[in-house]
Amino acid sequence: MSTENPIASAEAQTATTGDPDSVGLVEPKSHHFSEPLELACGRVLKNYTLVYETYGELNREKTNAVLICHALSGHHHAAGRHSIDDKRPGWWDHYIGPGKPIDTNHFFVVSVNNLGGCHGSTGPVSINPDTGTTWGPDFPSLRVRDWVHSQARLADMLGIRQWAAVVGGSLGGMQAMRWSLEYPERLRNCVVIASAMKLSAQNIAFNETARQAITSDPDFCDGHYLQQDKLPRRGLAVARMIGHITYLSDDGLGRKFGRELRSGSFQQGSDEEVEFQIQSYLRYQGASFSTTFDPNTYILMTRALDFFDLAREYGDDPVEAFSHAKCRFLLVSFTSDWRFAPERSREIADALMHADIPVSYAEVESAMGHDAFLLPNGRYEGVFRAYMQRVAAEIAEEVY
Amino acid sequence: MSTENPIASAEAQTATTGDPDSVGLVEPKSHHFSEPLELACGRVLKNYTLVYETYGELNREKTNAVLICHALSGHHHAAGRHSIDDKRPGWWDHYIGPGKPIDTNHFFVVSVNNLGGCHGSTGPVSINPDTGTTWGPDFPSLRVRDWVHSQARLADMLGIRQWAAVVGGSLGGMQAMRWSLEYPERLRNCVVIASAMKLSAQNIAFNETARQAITSDPDFCDGHYLQQDKLPRRGLAVARMIGHITYLSDDGLGRKFGRELRSGSFQQGSDEEVEFQIQSYLRYQGASFSTTFDPNTYILMTRALDFFDLAREYGDDPVEAFSHAKCRFLLVSFTSDWRFAPERSREIADALMHADIPVSYAEVESAMGHDAFLLPNGRYEGVFRAYMQRVAAEIAEEVY
Repeated sequence: MSTENPIASAEAQTATTGDPDSVGLVEPKSHHFSEPLELACGRVLKNYTLVYETYGELNREKTNAVLICHALSGHHHAAGRHSIDDKRPGWWDHYIGPGKPIDTNHFFVVSVNNLGGCHGSTGPVSINPDTGTTWGPDFPSLRVRDWVHSQARLADMLGIRQWAAVVGGSLGGMQAMRWSLEYPERLRNCVVIASAMKLSAQNIAFNETARQAITSDPDFCDGHYLQQDKLPRRGLAVARMIGHITYLSDDGLGRKFGRELRSGSFQQGSDEEVEFQIQSYLRYQGASFSTTFDPNTYILMTRALDFFDLAREYGDDPVEAFSHAKCRFLLVSFTSDWRFAPERSREIADALMHADIPVSYAEVESAMGHDAFLLPNGRYEGVFRAYMQRVAAEIAEEVY
Repeated sequence: MSTENPIASAEAQTATTGDPDSVGLVEPKSHHFSEPLELACGRVLKNYTLVYETYGELNREKTNAVLICHALSGHHHAAGRHSIDDKRPGWWDHYIGPGKPIDTNHFFVVSVNNLGGCHGSTGPVSINPDTGTTWGPDFPSLRVRDWVHSQARLADMLGIRQWAAVVGGSLGGMQAMRWSLEYPERLRNCVVIASAMKLSAQNIAFNETARQAITSDPDFCDGHYLQQDKLPRRGLAVARMIGHITYLSDDGLGRKFGRELRSGSFQQGSDEEVEFQIQSYLRYQGASFSTTFDPNTYILMTRALDFFDLAREYGDDPVEAFSHAKCRFLLVSFTSDWRFAPERSREIADALMHADIPVSYAEVESAMGHDAFLLPNGRYEGVFRAYMQRVAAEIAEEVY
């Protein structure tokens, strides 16, 4: 990883994986920020590092940059592969690449691991310079706006005065919306997918249960598990299982697993031998997540989700809030998404319309629940592509 | 508790709590069954005890008995109070009592703690006669039909050849349906509330996550926690929190808690001081359940739920299954119940109609989710009352 000449990395991407639709091989970059960052909670982060990836080339006028904001368990690796042997591409590879909705033939895409994350950016697993040990649970609590502020610094560093678009799904959509209010002049388009202006009590309840699963694991050690060479794997696995169920729809799970058995039969005597496919799938998901994600980061991110409330400081009036925005919006929701239901996106659309902000809204038919925002879907792809093509066309008109 | 003259206990109920709508003070009874019970899993329970309560009086012809089947975390104490100081009445007190839908002026109500339970009937916390220690995880796995068979023995003991009605909500509704197929001659009416012919993959997924929370708690000790003087309280609390969220609706939680804070403010610096009301409510529910319910019982009951599949041995054909039934049915579902959605009840109604079985079905408007079957609701009450009044009227016609 290098902080030198970050933009030139587009060259490095000419090494490809052989897939013409892919951004090819990519390399994470990092930048250390030495100016202190004042956080919403009142604490100050003296300095910090952000890890990010870029895809495509920044044009001379620096008007074609698109910021990708990640969701709860996401990270900076949104597209391409880190090596030819890489089993899976970045988490949004289906939507970022040459000819894809976020077309790297036109856009310079920046994807950053959020502050507080566990994939390289400064977070609970980093060393606290004041103590010389890992931050752990003492890492400052973060709000969505803190991410937005740190992303703005990254934009400054990259010389990007204004994003062509800030794009995000779920928690990423919350960041995109916050961008439109914190830095109205610094983005021309805001793409908010499967998101909400604030979580419902049910959403908070699921997050709280997931946090309880983690913090009640004896290996959590009040958050100081790393110093004690432990990891609350069991609690994190249960937390992930809870999340996983709620990101999928009843219908989607039914289609994928139904009541199919993985082992045993109902005629056999022992319960232990009978296992539904959904059971083994969930256990696998939980176990594999629990070895790759930091529990303190999970807690920090879910709390940022819970606390996000777009209009709180605007008298709880979303119209008043969005009256400060100056960009255009694309909103997308998915019919079977019950954690960020279409109703939540309709509320955003209504508020934007009442605030006289241009907005396109697509409610996409899908059985895949909240996860739909990550998955292939013809209509979603079509809407997303059409919107981004217009963004690209406007850049081209301005430039040439 | 006494096994003597169980029916005479109606006398004891003349001592009241002062509430004219209540069955008054009630006392649990128990009966020890010494004939072995062959279980669906192939194992045999040599002998066992069932704890139950009765409300109202059995008529001379023994035609007015109603069996109440309980749900996952239920028990035999469905109505009345155990003492004048009792803070809360039985779990279905709103629907059982003089003048209530299950009117104890007309019916003799029997409510039993299921085998495998933890409220007095033989279960994992009982002593295994072969080892002299608690059964714990070695208690045989049970199916819904095992409960039905043991309930039939209780009916034999009470001299009840045929139930006027078998009634249950959720898992209790599964028992009621199973009764109609196992003993078609032994019930005249089957009341199935907020239930399903089988669980969906999503339902199994929630149960599996709850079980993982319990079994991954180090204090679970592979189920032998009692012998080690431990209790997997943290795991059981998380399991209950998961259940609790899913028994309520998004809308219901929103109305009850919204995003109201219990402590702290968003302006303050420390996350720990900020707590949503829904958080403290869930923690309280989890903690209090974890000291009153047996973890092995929770696992056993959720597995019985997962494995229930009404039509499995009828070629997966619900119409073929119900063609063996001879009673009339009342089905009730609630609009906001997403764990046992109205669609599941409509499937039951369709199968019954195609099997030419008389069925009444009410889809009741409610914001209270699955829990609605336990709560006051005018339309539910009206439908339930009207149906049971007809059952009572027919008994009266036959008798007099």
